[in-house]
Amino acid sequence: MWLQREIRLEARPRGFHLVTGEVVGALPELGSVRVGLLHLHILHTSASLTLNENASPDVRRDFASWFDRAVPERAPYWTHTLEGEDDMPAHVKSSLLGPSLTLPISAGQLALGTWQGIYLCEHRDHGGSRRLVATAWGEAGEG
Amino acid sequence: MWLQREIRLEARPRGFHLVTGEVVGALPELGSVRVGLLHLHILHTSASLTLNENASPDVRRDFASWFDRAVPERAPYWTHTLEGEDDMPAHVKSSLLGPSLTLPISAGQLALGTWQGIYLCEHRDHGGSRRLVATAWGEAGEG
Amino acid sequence: MWLQREIRLEARPRGFHLVTGEVVGALPELGSVRVGLLHLHILHTSASLTLNENASPDVRRDFASWFDRAVPERAPYWTHTLEGEDDMPAHVKSSLLGPSLTLPISAGQLALGTWQGIYLCEHRDHGGSRRLVATAWGEAGEG
Repeated sequence: MWLQREIRLEARPRGFHLVTGEVVGALPELGSVRVGLLHLHILHTSASLTLNENASPDVRRDFASWFDRAVPERAPYWTHTLEGEDDMPAHVKSSLLGPSLTLPISAGQLALGTWQGIYLCEHRDHGGSRRLVATAWGEAGEG
Repeated sequence: MWLQREIRLEARPRGFHLVTGEVVGALPELGSVRVGLLHLHILHTSASLTLNENASPDVRRDFASWFDRAVPERAPYWTHTLEGEDDMPAHVKSSLLGPSLTLPISAGQLALGTWQGIYLCEHRDHGGSRRLVATAWGEAGEG
Repeated sequence: MWLQREIRLEARPRGFHLVTGEVVGALPELGSVRVGLLHLHILHTSASLTLNENASPDVRRDFASWFDRAVPERAPYWTHTLEGEDDMPAHVKSSLLGPSLTLPISAGQLALGTWQGIYLCEHRDHGGSRRLVATAWGEAGEG
């Protein structure tokens, strides 16, 4: 079976945001996949997806602190500055974290670790709504 | 064909460890895949997987040196510190390297480059045994 | 349907290079995939693949500037130095960006965002031609 659907995530402020519920809620058909995979792909170059700790908001805040220091705005080596000070750092952060996640599906559910959640990594100050292409494939069945 | 199995990797000290043999040895069915893919997913947020040079132990030691400097412990901006000084850096390192690898299978073998090996990236001082979900899919046959 | 093919990318100088056209041009069969995925895997440990902004050459130049500062040559902590000053930084950069991309296919085309292009990230001074394994799978049809 194949499923492919575009998901539009609501606009969020710059930072790291837990979106597991929003993504899974948009894909009720996952419940009928016995074994398979879900691929999530973000259609942007200034926001990204990652998987990390799903319990403590301070982990997501610390992610922002580290990335803002590691990829600073107003560094003297940036030449692509016309689209704002947050633009070029957003591109680099996006590639460090990556545009896609591939996640196992087992018995109708994402087979994630207890503490794993899907993060939308919003690297722009005003990124707006973000679009994902979700593709699931596998064997149907109840497990 | 689909194969999905949990693999438990033995506990290793903090650092970068070559685990190609341990992973492939747990998946003897790969030998019957003519063309396909293997997805490896780690069920943790403080360890990760990557592919890199499989010959020189000093490459893996240099990985540890670089990551420990790039994502330092005891930085003043960490607020999530209750679980130990190595915890928050482990989360960031995990997302920089990523929780998953997807690898091509060709004629019953992983189609890797000559120098490519699978690294378990253990970012905690005492991470313990780590669990992977391995999912393989493709066309059966001898190639 | 399954398609697996090795693609040899022409040698390029150190830096970040847009290769979407070269990759897609080597895979004309993608036009007959209604829904599916394309996996691109580089067979090297000193070059990598990422997806980023496809319009401005200055974005790709700024990528090089950032990565060369973040993972410097001649750092005192490198011990794997026999293969050249650019070698060990190339290994770390490769794992930061990753060896693979998985991209959705929809109605015979890669379903990328308007500004997304495939980058070959060449981290060696003289890396030579680079080999990819391209694997596509999905449902055939015109969409």
